[in-house]
Amino acid sequence: MKHTEEIRVVKIGGNVIDNPETLERFVRHFAQLPDPKILIHGGGKLATRLAEKLEIPTRMVDGRRITDEATLEVVTMVYAGAVNKQLVAKLQEAGCNAMGLCGADGNLIPATRRSPFPVDYGFVGDIVPIRINTDLLHLLLKAGYTPVFSAITHDGQGSLLNSNADSVAQSVAVAASTLAPTDLHFCFEKTGVLRDVDDPDSLIEEITPKRYAELRASGVISQGMLPKIENALKAVAAGVRRVVIQHADNLCNGVGTFIQLDSHV
Amino acid sequence: MKHTEEIRVVKIGGNVIDNPETLERFVRHFAQLPDPKILIHGGGKLATRLAEKLEIPTRMVDGRRITDEATLEVVTMVYAGAVNKQLVAKLQEAGCNAMGLCGADGNLIPATRRSPFPVDYGFVGDIVPIRINTDLLHLLLKAGYTPVFSAITHDGQGSLLNSNADSVAQSVAVAASTLAPTDLHFCFEKTGVLRDVDDPDSLIEEITPKRYAELRASGVISQGMLPKIENALKAVAAGVRRVVIQHADNLCNGVGTFIQLDSHV
Repeated sequence: MKHTEEIRVVKIGGNVIDNPETLERFVRHFAQLPDPKILIHGGGKLATRLAEKLEIPTRMVDGRRITDEATLEVVTMVYAGAVNKQLVAKLQEAGCNAMGLCGADGNLIPATRRSPFPVDYGFVGDIVPIRINTDLLHLLLKAGYTPVFSAITHDGQGSLLNSNADSVAQSVAVAASTLAPTDLHFCFEKTGVLRDVDDPDSLIEEITPKRYAELRASGVISQGMLPKIENALKAVAAGVRRVVIQHADNLCNGVGTFIQLDSHV
Repeated sequence: MKHTEEIRVVKIGGNVIDNPETLERFVRHFAQLPDPKILIHGGGKLATRLAEKLEIPTRMVDGRRITDEATLEVVTMVYAGAVNKQLVAKLQEAGCNAMGLCGADGNLIPATRRSPFPVDYGFVGDIVPIRINTDLLHLLLKAGYTPVFSAITHDGQGSLLNSNADSVAQSVAVAASTLAPTDLHFCFEKTGVLRDVDDPDSLIEEITPKRYAELRASGVISQGMLPKIENALKAVAAGVRRVVIQHADNLCNGVGTFIQLDSHV
């Protein structure tokens, strides 16, 4: 990896993984992106379906799933096993030298088990970007490999942990930005941040901290998008060059909402 | 990795993985082995149990399981997911910088889907040692990482494949022997090759091709052990320095059957 190169960190969610045609298109597009690049994937519905088949009860608190031991085993099997390795095999076929990893591998993404107070979410891990094994990321990227991460991490004390894939993507992007200018792409089912959620043509092409304050004040952005944008602004404040929120099909054509610092405008 | 160093390739089977105490002892011993080292693991009973719970019928031909699509997904989840990542987390805890991989990752172990004639075993992959990505193995070992392989491989055309863990171990050891003198350890539940299967004190400490011919002629070695020894002799003929067949508890103390070329005696 030369120092002038840019790193692309791409996150896909369940909606891309669950639909075979969407996934196939995404794999083709992602393989076309120039190196160096990193992929982070969520889980999709397979984990829920498997837990149902195995009759593992879903326990929710405040709308969030509790990761007990049986659930941890299911998400490890599905995210770090089936989804991760199938993605790698497809990317290899498409000519991308993908390498499937979880956060425990090479101690790449150490996490801290979330405090059991006030709510014990079980085996859930929070990530500290500064503890990411950037040396190993650098070694792999420099040698031409494309790390493909599931959101399974570990506590360094023998336990795997279930982490949030958006947080993994964000932490990895912050770590990568110490190596080279880094763009973080969140691929989802919409064109980007929209003025009108029902109108795909109402794309907001750029959001900076200043612009965000204005948009927020005017009530243009939907409630669901606010935390996504705030996290993106945190990522750019922490060193990521741009966060792009976009449709998976637009990964290569530059269409989406670009979130960056005012000084970059 | 210095050229004077030796590489240890260790293979454990289901009997080590299925018993929590045996596994814990093995993890402690393996972590104590000096670097560079590589671990290959089999599956254990979890895959069979999961397939049963999911009501995936087991189809056998000539005593061998058919890996259909549903079975492939199960073994990928269990071997490349649960077993692999739990092993990695435990090794990390024990101070070994383990990195869990399958053969698709970084195209480390490309395989060829077995011919469907005369029997179609489904998604089963045979490995060609010469196609192993030795450069990536070298990169990881040199940087101090310990690759931990499940026996899931791929065909480079988008399909994962189920391979035999002994064959993966053997192929990886042959590939590693091009980097440095390599010993291949098969850990199982007996002390080694025994003159009398019921007497653990009847260990045969050394087998060379010449000695093997004598032992075989005298009918001393049990039928079940013959293919294991013949494969070991193939491995040493292909460049592996020694193949050690031993009890998992003896990994560090040098007790076991050492299989090597006559010229090494």
